[in-house]
Amino acid sequence: MKTFMGPDFLLDSEPAKILYESAKDMPICDYHCHIDPQEIAQDKRYSNITAVWLGGDHYKWRLLRANGFSEAEVTGARYSDPRGLFKRFVKTLPQAVGNPIYHWSYLELLRYFDVPAPVSEEGADALYDLLNQKLETLTVRQIINKSNVAVICTTDDPADTLKWHDFLAGDSSFKTQVLPAFRPDKAMAIDKPDFTEYIVKLESASGSSIGTFDDLAKALEKRIDFFASKGCRASDHALEAGVFALATPAELDLILEKALNGKPISALETEKHKTALLAVLAKKYHDLGWGMQIHFGCRRNNNTRLFRLVGADTGFDSMNNDGGVQKMSQFLDYCDSSGGLPRTILYSLNPGDSEALVTIAGCFNADAECPGKVQIGSAWWFLDSKAGMEKQLLDFSNGTLLANFNGMLTDSRSFLSYARHEYFRRILCNFVGGLVESGQAYPDLDQLSEMIKDICFRNVMRYFGFKEKA
Amino acid sequence: MKTFMGPDFLLDSEPAKILYESAKDMPICDYHCHIDPQEIAQDKRYSNITAVWLGGDHYKWRLLRANGFSEAEVTGARYSDPRGLFKRFVKTLPQAVGNPIYHWSYLELLRYFDVPAPVSEEGADALYDLLNQKLETLTVRQIINKSNVAVICTTDDPADTLKWHDFLAGDSSFKTQVLPAFRPDKAMAIDKPDFTEYIVKLESASGSSIGTFDDLAKALEKRIDFFASKGCRASDHALEAGVFALATPAELDLILEKALNGKPISALETEKHKTALLAVLAKKYHDLGWGMQIHFGCRRNNNTRLFRLVGADTGFDSMNNDGGVQKMSQFLDYCDSSGGLPRTILYSLNPGDSEALVTIAGCFNADAECPGKVQIGSAWWFLDSKAGMEKQLLDFSNGTLLANFNGMLTDSRSFLSYARHEYFRRILCNFVGGLVESGQAYPDLDQLSEMIKDICFRNVMRYFGFKEKA
Amino acid sequence: MKTFMGPDFLLDSEPAKILYESAKDMPICDYHCHIDPQEIAQDKRYSNITAVWLGGDHYKWRLLRANGFSEAEVTGARYSDPRGLFKRFVKTLPQAVGNPIYHWSYLELLRYFDVPAPVSEEGADALYDLLNQKLETLTVRQIINKSNVAVICTTDDPADTLKWHDFLAGDSSFKTQVLPAFRPDKAMAIDKPDFTEYIVKLESASGSSIGTFDDLAKALEKRIDFFASKGCRASDHALEAGVFALATPAELDLILEKALNGKPISALETEKHKTALLAVLAKKYHDLGWGMQIHFGCRRNNNTRLFRLVGADTGFDSMNNDGGVQKMSQFLDYCDSSGGLPRTILYSLNPGDSEALVTIAGCFNADAECPGKVQIGSAWWFLDSKAGMEKQLLDFSNGTLLANFNGMLTDSRSFLSYARHEYFRRILCNFVGGLVESGQAYPDLDQLSEMIKDICFRNVMRYFGFKEKA
Repeated sequence: MKTFMGPDFLLDSEPAKILYESAKDMPICDYHCHIDPQEIAQDKRYSNITAVWLGGDHYKWRLLRANGFSEAEVTGARYSDPRGLFKRFVKTLPQAVGNPIYHWSYLELLRYFDVPAPVSEEGADALYDLLNQKLETLTVRQIINKSNVAVICTTDDPADTLKWHDFLAGDSSFKTQVLPAFRPDKAMAIDKPDFTEYIVKLESASGSSIGTFDDLAKALEKRIDFFASKGCRASDHALEAGVFALATPAELDLILEKALNGKPISALETEKHKTALLAVLAKKYHDLGWGMQIHFGCRRNNNTRLFRLVGADTGFDSMNNDGGVQKMSQFLDYCDSSGGLPRTILYSLNPGDSEALVTIAGCFNADAECPGKVQIGSAWWFLDSKAGMEKQLLDFSNGTLLANFNGMLTDSRSFLSYARHEYFRRILCNFVGGLVESGQAYPDLDQLSEMIKDICFRNVMRYFGFKEKA
Repeated sequence: MKTFMGPDFLLDSEPAKILYESAKDMPICDYHCHIDPQEIAQDKRYSNITAVWLGGDHYKWRLLRANGFSEAEVTGARYSDPRGLFKRFVKTLPQAVGNPIYHWSYLELLRYFDVPAPVSEEGADALYDLLNQKLETLTVRQIINKSNVAVICTTDDPADTLKWHDFLAGDSSFKTQVLPAFRPDKAMAIDKPDFTEYIVKLESASGSSIGTFDDLAKALEKRIDFFASKGCRASDHALEAGVFALATPAELDLILEKALNGKPISALETEKHKTALLAVLAKKYHDLGWGMQIHFGCRRNNNTRLFRLVGADTGFDSMNNDGGVQKMSQFLDYCDSSGGLPRTILYSLNPGDSEALVTIAGCFNADAECPGKVQIGSAWWFLDSKAGMEKQLLDFSNGTLLANFNGMLTDSRSFLSYARHEYFRRILCNFVGGLVESGQAYPDLDQLSEMIKDICFRNVMRYFGFKEKA
Repeated sequence: MKTFMGPDFLLDSEPAKILYESAKDMPICDYHCHIDPQEIAQDKRYSNITAVWLGGDHYKWRLLRANGFSEAEVTGARYSDPRGLFKRFVKTLPQAVGNPIYHWSYLELLRYFDVPAPVSEEGADALYDLLNQKLETLTVRQIINKSNVAVICTTDDPADTLKWHDFLAGDSSFKTQVLPAFRPDKAMAIDKPDFTEYIVKLESASGSSIGTFDDLAKALEKRIDFFASKGCRASDHALEAGVFALATPAELDLILEKALNGKPISALETEKHKTALLAVLAKKYHDLGWGMQIHFGCRRNNNTRLFRLVGADTGFDSMNNDGGVQKMSQFLDYCDSSGGLPRTILYSLNPGDSEALVTIAGCFNADAECPGKVQIGSAWWFLDSKAGMEKQLLDFSNGTLLANFNGMLTDSRSFLSYARHEYFRRILCNFVGGLVESGQAYPDLDQLSEMIKDICFRNVMRYFGFKEKA
């Protein structure tokens, strides 16, 4: 029986262990996450372990709900009863055997607090106090340093001032590069009630008036240039499903006018707006050499009652079984034909899409400016279990060159989740090492070690053109 | 080489073997099956092995057809040539390597007749005689006793009198609790030719006249109360795909009126009727604390020619690749928002739906009255292979808390198929034991043994609120 | 660590090794490929290794594109710079770890040129010269002989004269049976711009005038009889997705008339034409005892820019996520009900379809004229990785009788790709051997060896009714 979470955790063969030696000390480039740059700038200190471990991580809230705890005992207890919430989670954790959160949570305790498994309901009170004590000397920047993070891309609205990124760029005492990523979802979401309000905000940020589709495109392009001036090299788009519905410029203006006048926008009109706007943005990204990330295959806010109670991004989303994968292909073709297809990473939150997505990505690499120009992204959110990551690695390597894979991201709202990079690296090394062990790969471990280093860090740095902080 | 079907069958690690010690003697709660309560009440005795082993099991008929036997040699031979049918199946069985029926059939021979593998065409005649001889002392109740079955839920139409359940409840010599499960599919199927006829039957059973949608709902609610008075705690619904189309009360009345007048009902009208009626029933189940089972992702009677010849439920169904998973989510939200979402088990017969279903289930556990309130169900029918069960366990544990899983059911029309519970338990223990063996789970085998016992029996008893017979 | 590509390559258990002894010397029946009969007839000799290894294999071109090479460096270099293209591929190959092309390419080098792994960029020039030298004594027929190929089915248009097949049938010095397969895709594709032109060609080949749907059907039936006279026993149909839309004869005539007059044909009209024509052809195949192959779940020519540059079948296709699996079931039922369902092999290029397809196939085996009458086909194209083949074997064996499986085909445009049969056989033996090793199958290795021989060669010969050349 192998030791739980020992040095060889998830490394099941000698080649895997050897390869992991190359992986483990590579810096982290976390090119897609949702942490708050202000908290890094101000080097946030947490008042208790619940705040950092459970305060923002809706993956963990879902487990608590599934264990029968009421919403009051979960999100309701974050500030009013942090000890109670902690104890509920500690009770739940051993029941989560087979779940990635079981692994991550234990890894987080082990790597950041030197607390080994298991936890138990009986010891929860003492553990709470112990972790709080350790937390006194563990600030946000210390977590980041300890995690060997070279680059972080936060997720930022086009209207954002990026003032905290400026602050961090100017702070030479902090060695991690913190860059913005451009996420114009609100400008895409023409069917949402707050669209008009958002356009006003964007007008103000871009110093331009928006009455036509072209105005909107220009305003966003201005903001892209602004983001670029702050070092941004990545964009990020959330779609429920692939979009591809073409429209004339006149139609697009009409749709925008309707929206700005508060009139309801149909599903087809929304798709036309999104298709056209995403294509314009894609061309701009292409011209600047940025990478574009598109994630889809997810349906948001499925529980109306809880959405009203606790809002979005709180753990009530699900996979979409109707992800519009074919439209994604048509959209890429449209961009490519008009010379504006940037480096693109496609993520579907539904694992059943990934085989098809790999084949689609493979259709758009001709005359590419870089290896692996269009590729599927890492397994994250609903997919970042061991099995989910292994399937992604399998689909990727079965369908194209694993060597060009851009590797892991956290997508996280929690600073402790850099542990997921370790999780990924072990799974990656085990996957490749397993091929060697079983005689499926030629045992050139030097070459494979370089490949591992590329996937862990170097590929994504090259792909986006990130620079480490001087 | 491991011994075929030896004591460690499917148990590939030491922890798996240890955990199975806790699983193997747990009673069975078979909360979803299609056996006939009259046969239990009258303690049916079989005239030959074909009758009990092959007479009602259309899974086996499919194998015979796939092996080139004519329908006359399969269903046609059940009564006219039981020996011939038996010999055809014995010839086919060794060719079914890798198929779950290969395992079940050998398990059935081993556990109920002490006949070990292999069978062979040459020995078929002698085996037939031997099994018939052993069958002389093996009645339905003896099979059930031998299988350690604590609770059986049959599947019953709302119009049923439940007289055989009454008989069994009153028979203190038989220790297994035999409860009805409420399956109102015929009241849902407003587009079917026999709908009107069924409504007359339901009017008679409920003592009410049905002219409006509300009448229909009330009549079913009356029958639910009647079923509840007989100990029923579970309902069961077969859908081809998820439904979600809302309608006004007036519309619903109109649709029902059309149907009662024998006019054709459109697909959309059918969906409206089903959505509304299922929501009404769900609220009633919720009020009574029942559990609701919904299975979908299946298309029935694909072979018109054979449907005319041998009718429904004879092995001509297939997975549906368009299961309406998103509508299922909208339907659950609708129930939840109106305060009437009962404990719900979702089964899709298509394995590609299960990852998405797990994420959907996870959206409806807030403020739940019990752990694992909404969950995906066991892998059955097309899915109860080793691989199918392992995928279900993986999807379940990857997406939520395996500890709350309600475990196995047979869905069977054959009394011998309790062996499938053994099959499941071995796969379950192997799954969890494998996590321990490979260092993926903390090796607290006491805790894990309790979890295994919960999944094998205790969870489902608590979930539905079943009681063992006094 | 197991030796890469040693004698036990992919054979991970003793039973697997034993079973492979029975598999390895079985002849090959490659019943579905795209090689040119003229090249066999004329016993083509290659001017360089690039021509035979990389010249026609668009699977390999995709890897090169994914590695950042321009189209000029890939297809553009085939004739102008064969050495350069070779070197690019040799550089890419070690990066393709985990990809089936990595295995095939190394197998091709090893089996046909005695060149063991690894290749390296440094050694590429010398290797190019060495392989060219070895190629001097390796003609197309020598490759085929070395590969022990008993039967080849090429893919042929109904209008084809089959003169090269005649030539080969008459050449007693060549022992491989080279048969045509009937592929009337162009007659189905009523919505394509070259349809009218094609009909003229078909009129000429069939010696009939085509003005009505019935004329078209008759013309094709004539060609089927002609193909049958040349020994053809197999047809092959490529669909993007399943079709099922019924039409009256008058409608069908009108649609054809529109098409012949150059008017645009709607998607529904196209589906009606395809449904009706495929059903007519199916009945004819059934009458002749032919096997019908239908492959779908693929979208072609996704990259418009490159389609204009390099045309079809050059590596710009993808899986279709919307394969119309249910319509396939309805279509089979329609054929079966009208007494005209031939032996049918269903291939979806999307692995997510295969579980459902197995269940659908299982609905149409009643009263079948042969075992495994309707079955899913081998994993090929996007699916012929180790994992893809294992999933196909799993889905097949989980859902029906593996013993009746028709086994592997290459679908290849390259003569070297018979190595893929070896690849398949190893995976097959490993799959079945693994069941024995782990105690999941009764260890009757004699019986299982016969089953392996059936799957490798004998089943498909019986299924289609092929004869080896006298």
